[in-house]
Amino acid sequence: MNNLKIEIIGRGNVATHLNKALCDTFDINLVNPRTLENFRANSDICLISVSDNAIENIANQLSFFKGVIAHTSGSTPMTVFAKNFEKYGVFYPLQTFSKDILIDYSKIPVFIEASDNDTIDLLKFVASKFSTHIYDTDSNIRKQLHLASVFACNYVNHLYFIANKILQDNSLDINVLIPLIEETTRKIKTTSPEDAQTGPARRNDTKTINSHLDALSKYTDFKEIYDVMANNIIKTYHK
Amino acid sequence: MNNLKIEIIGRGNVATHLNKALCDTFDINLVNPRTLENFRANSDICLISVSDNAIENIANQLSFFKGVIAHTSGSTPMTVFAKNFEKYGVFYPLQTFSKDILIDYSKIPVFIEASDNDTIDLLKFVASKFSTHIYDTDSNIRKQLHLASVFACNYVNHLYFIANKILQDNSLDINVLIPLIEETTRKIKTTSPEDAQTGPARRNDTKTINSHLDALSKYTDFKEIYDVMANNIIKTYHK
Repeated sequence: MNNLKIEIIGRGNVATHLNKALCDTFDINLVNPRTLENFRANSDICLISVSDNAIENIANQLSFFKGVIAHTSGSTPMTVFAKNFEKYGVFYPLQTFSKDILIDYSKIPVFIEASDNDTIDLLKFVASKFSTHIYDTDSNIRKQLHLASVFACNYVNHLYFIANKILQDNSLDINVLIPLIEETTRKIKTTSPEDAQTGPARRNDTKTINSHLDALSKYTDFKEIYDVMANNIIKTYHK
Repeated sequence: MNNLKIEIIGRGNVATHLNKALCDTFDINLVNPRTLENFRANSDICLISVSDNAIENIANQLSFFKGVIAHTSGSTPMTVFAKNFEKYGVFYPLQTFSKDILIDYSKIPVFIEASDNDTIDLLKFVASKFSTHIYDTDSNIRKQLHLASVFACNYVNHLYFIANKILQDNSLDINVLIPLIEETTRKIKTTSPEDAQTGPARRNDTKTINSHLDALSKYTDFKEIYDVMANNIIKTYHK
């Protein structure tokens, strides 16, 4: 099966990394989602790796395709393919991909769902060429995974963005926070996040919280985020 | 100077770890902040490691003390000691401490401020016994550092708490997110948080955002946090 022909439709981070992870094993063709001009209709598999808003539109344009069609989205149900295709599925790699950053693909969990057992097996076979963590899932569970990953990755990164902005505005470098950031991440491998919490809100230290809110007066949006997070932590531990 | 006598007043995480980090080098005495009963008045240094609300009260009870007095707080100004003491300062280790977790003390940045140069040198000497990252700072900059660390540590951990709760409620384990969490942390060592951002809000993918908000209907507080964060990311990148 190693001579499988696979179309990857997309120009974003996920498409770029899937190509890198699979191109040594399979005959991969990267397809521009705007034109679809170099799409090979006789391919075995087509992976659609575009923004959620665009998946259905692209799928509708490929209704002639007889191979296995799948998308790589966390939040789009598999049923987006049910109308036009016989063999279809989802191939969801749970990782944050940036174009120029190297990643150890073997650790990426891949969540598979498909219309039938043969298609599940085929998509798992493809995933097994780079990952050692492959799971069956359904569209609802996958959506919950994606939601959790938005909190644990995208929103965490935005908090790093906020911290970095505050430091830069005081001529400080985010490097002074790296040991703290690494320890915060390391902790949750051995301790539940509930037990790992520390800081002013955990202690209900209103004096420090108010002094921080004062210091944030010139950052209206960050102040709102600080306030919402502090209140939720206080509510979690003290009410 | 290795036979310095140091009082550490506190029973919390920071006091516990400072004792661990320093007890092999100095003559350390841990003092109960509620009673102060075993306090040694002839000590060289007294480190007050209690919640910000309680620092001033304890300092006032120790006005007879002739050694160097310092607190370990990120947000309390050094001037809390100015009324009653001649030699005073701040000894602020920027790390998240949990009682039973081992930490590589050598990487912890310690921020020092003091009333005079001799006291700065003495506090730096103490810090140098465990850390290789020691900085001069003032009360305003230290407050900004503490504020940034609340975002990058406490609030990050609370996002892990939220992700964990969503996963647990769907019989999933936070371990599936560990590669993603580690990659998110690893990225900021080589990429600015601004450039590292990914996800639905970064793409202004309103379809996914709304579907996530729907999925959060039973978690009122988490929904509010999701919404505030999504809006701030969209504003950062799309407005």
